Amino acid sequence: MKRDPSPLDTDTLYLGAPDVARIVARKGLPACLAGVADRIHADFLRWHEFDKTPRVANHSADGVIELMPVSDASWYSFKYVNGHPKNTQRGVSTVMAFGVLADVATGAPRLLAELTLPTAIRTAAMSALAARTLARKDSRVMALIGNGAQAEFQAIAFRDLVGIRTLRVHDVDARASAKLVRNLQGQGLEIVVCASTAEAVRGADIVTTITADKQLATIITPEMVEPGMHFNGVGGDCPGKTELHADVLRAASVFVEFEPQTRIEGDLQQMPADFEVTELWRVLSGQTAGRTSDAQVTVFDSVGFAIEDYAALHFLHDMARELGIGDVIQLVPQMNDPKDLFATIGATADLQRAPARSSIATISA
Amino acid sequence: MKRDPSPLDTDTLYLGAPDVARIVARKGLPACLAGVADRIHADFLRWHEFDKTPRVANHSADGVIELMPVSDASWYSFKYVNGHPKNTQRGVSTVMAFGVLADVATGAPRLLAELTLPTAIRTAAMSALAARTLARKDSRVMALIGNGAQAEFQAIAFRDLVGIRTLRVHDVDARASAKLVRNLQGQGLEIVVCASTAEAVRGADIVTTITADKQLATIITPEMVEPGMHFNGVGGDCPGKTELHADVLRAASVFVEFEPQTRIEGDLQQMPADFEVTELWRVLSGQTAGRTSDAQVTVFDSVGFAIEDYAALHFLHDMARELGIGDVIQLVPQMNDPKDLFATIGATADLQRAPARSSIATISA
Repeated sequence: MKRDPSPLDTDTLYLGAPDVARIVARKGLPACLAGVADRIHADFLRWHEFDKTPRVANHSADGVIELMPVSDASWYSFKYVNGHPKNTQRGVSTVMAFGVLADVATGAPRLLAELTLPTAIRTAAMSALAARTLARKDSRVMALIGNGAQAEFQAIAFRDLVGIRTLRVHDVDARASAKLVRNLQGQGLEIVVCASTAEAVRGADIVTTITADKQLATIITPEMVEPGMHFNGVGGDCPGKTELHADVLRAASVFVEFEPQTRIEGDLQQMPADFEVTELWRVLSGQTAGRTSDAQVTVFDSVGFAIEDYAALHFLHDMARELGIGDVIQLVPQMNDPKDLFATIGATADLQRAPARSSIATISA
Repeated sequence: MKRDPSPLDTDTLYLGAPDVARIVARKGLPACLAGVADRIHADFLRWHEFDKTPRVANHSADGVIELMPVSDASWYSFKYVNGHPKNTQRGVSTVMAFGVLADVATGAPRLLAELTLPTAIRTAAMSALAARTLARKDSRVMALIGNGAQAEFQAIAFRDLVGIRTLRVHDVDARASAKLVRNLQGQGLEIVVCASTAEAVRGADIVTTITADKQLATIITPEMVEPGMHFNGVGGDCPGKTELHADVLRAASVFVEFEPQTRIEGDLQQMPADFEVTELWRVLSGQTAGRTSDAQVTVFDSVGFAIEDYAALHFLHDMARELGIGDVIQLVPQMNDPKDLFATIGATADLQRAPARSSIATISA
């Protein structure tokens, strides 16, 4: 990985929400999905170079806040991400995220970026990458259960990376489906709005579940499963939050990102500790077969893993520099003498007489 | 805890390194040390309200990067902090840190702040709070072993909160001691620069060790220990990094912040799992005795715990609003429809024609 050429080792490039949205608007969502998928693929192929750990979660009554660190010999990354299904009732997103890339050699943070939009992109890229490996090659019809904030990203990733042409969509909130149809107009996808999950799933090649409720749900039940289907289970991603009936998992070959984390968080949480699963990197690297017959049922039990955010952060870093987007901030001090932190207090006395920056005076007490 | 009155639930107040240094310069370091000590004390008294976990560390050849999350019913906080002893050779600080306060109800990040300077402040405040509880009340002389970035903060905290009047200082780097003497001129402390650790420790009431080398060191050996001494062991704070000989711990009553973390990281890492220690909150709350005689040797095996950063972040938040310092940033997106993340891409197309912000074009590829 090429190192950042910035002259000051403790500078941090900041990409706020408008910056990240601008990067995606200028590159185009399809290019971002493809670019992030390529990076995830490349990083999964060097799986053993990463220092991996299940994410750390703090659970509360209405949601969860998680930290997802990972590192290789050169770069450390972490993501902060929440999941609060009731947020939408007060006009706030269910999922919000930001993250950091830091230099392993010094510990200095080099990139701080909003990751809500990139989380949707990397999740869809990961799902499509898994489906490209596990679903039948002739898959053209996808059921999309849950039509919320991440639905469009899944739709476009599967159109471009898997070859999906028809979406059969369903959501308990009809307005969410209407929004999805509106947003995907002119994108070359046939969209069929369905009255139930069962109706949407019927005849689909791939079934993507991406629902938000934090409960042990069974969105997909055994009688919906048809031979050869690939299930992309995205919404069952923390303890107490599942989407697939245990018998769906039992009847399928199940693939995961990072097994120790998925056992805690995935639909897999319902299964005994010895229930057999395969880490996807083994299939991507050719160590293990993925799908072995057209009749086999496959499940990608996705929970989202830190390497995907590591990949997304690197993609953003490169795009920001290519496009000249972002601000350099002093997230940590620059010191004339690194053993003299105390002097940084006195050094800033002069700053009190400097011209005011845009300030929060208007909201201060 | 009073909730933030900001009108937009996903706004984040940003305090960069110059902002935080300005807050400390305007309030004065003594007021900051006392204010943070008071907050740590109050938060330690409600120990059971916090969802606590040992920090998550990624170790590399030259250092460590850690994430330290904690939460109560209202607020979640985490700190990012590194420890890279060789950094000073290339002009970069050994320790750099930043952190976030987030709203537990929604997961929205509400404060992002540089925490390198506040880490030194909260570490010194924690040390002084422990010593005020554990050291002999007539303690006036402190040995200060390791005169690097955090030494002045320890000196002033112990002057104000414990009553220390004389410092006996030693560092393997004589320039570090000279810097300490220079920075503490006119602060009402008698300072004696000593040629060795043994010389500095002789006759001291309190011994503070705050060295940087990441190794299993024995800065303090049993023959240095005198009856009634209090040891404030600050530098032994990650696996493979200790300062106190095991026999020093055996001869003392040992107090810790959060036992599960200190067993991994503290000088305690040398001891068997059943070696008895006492969590400091039990002493502060009156559940357990601290020092029981003038001859007793006490050790505070400090590693730094997330509640201390939670306290420091709240202190900064209050001071920033009182002084009108900081910028409001969009670390996560503000969405008109929280289920329509996709629309935020299109919404920013207009931004491309907006006036340029200060940009990184000059360092882009």
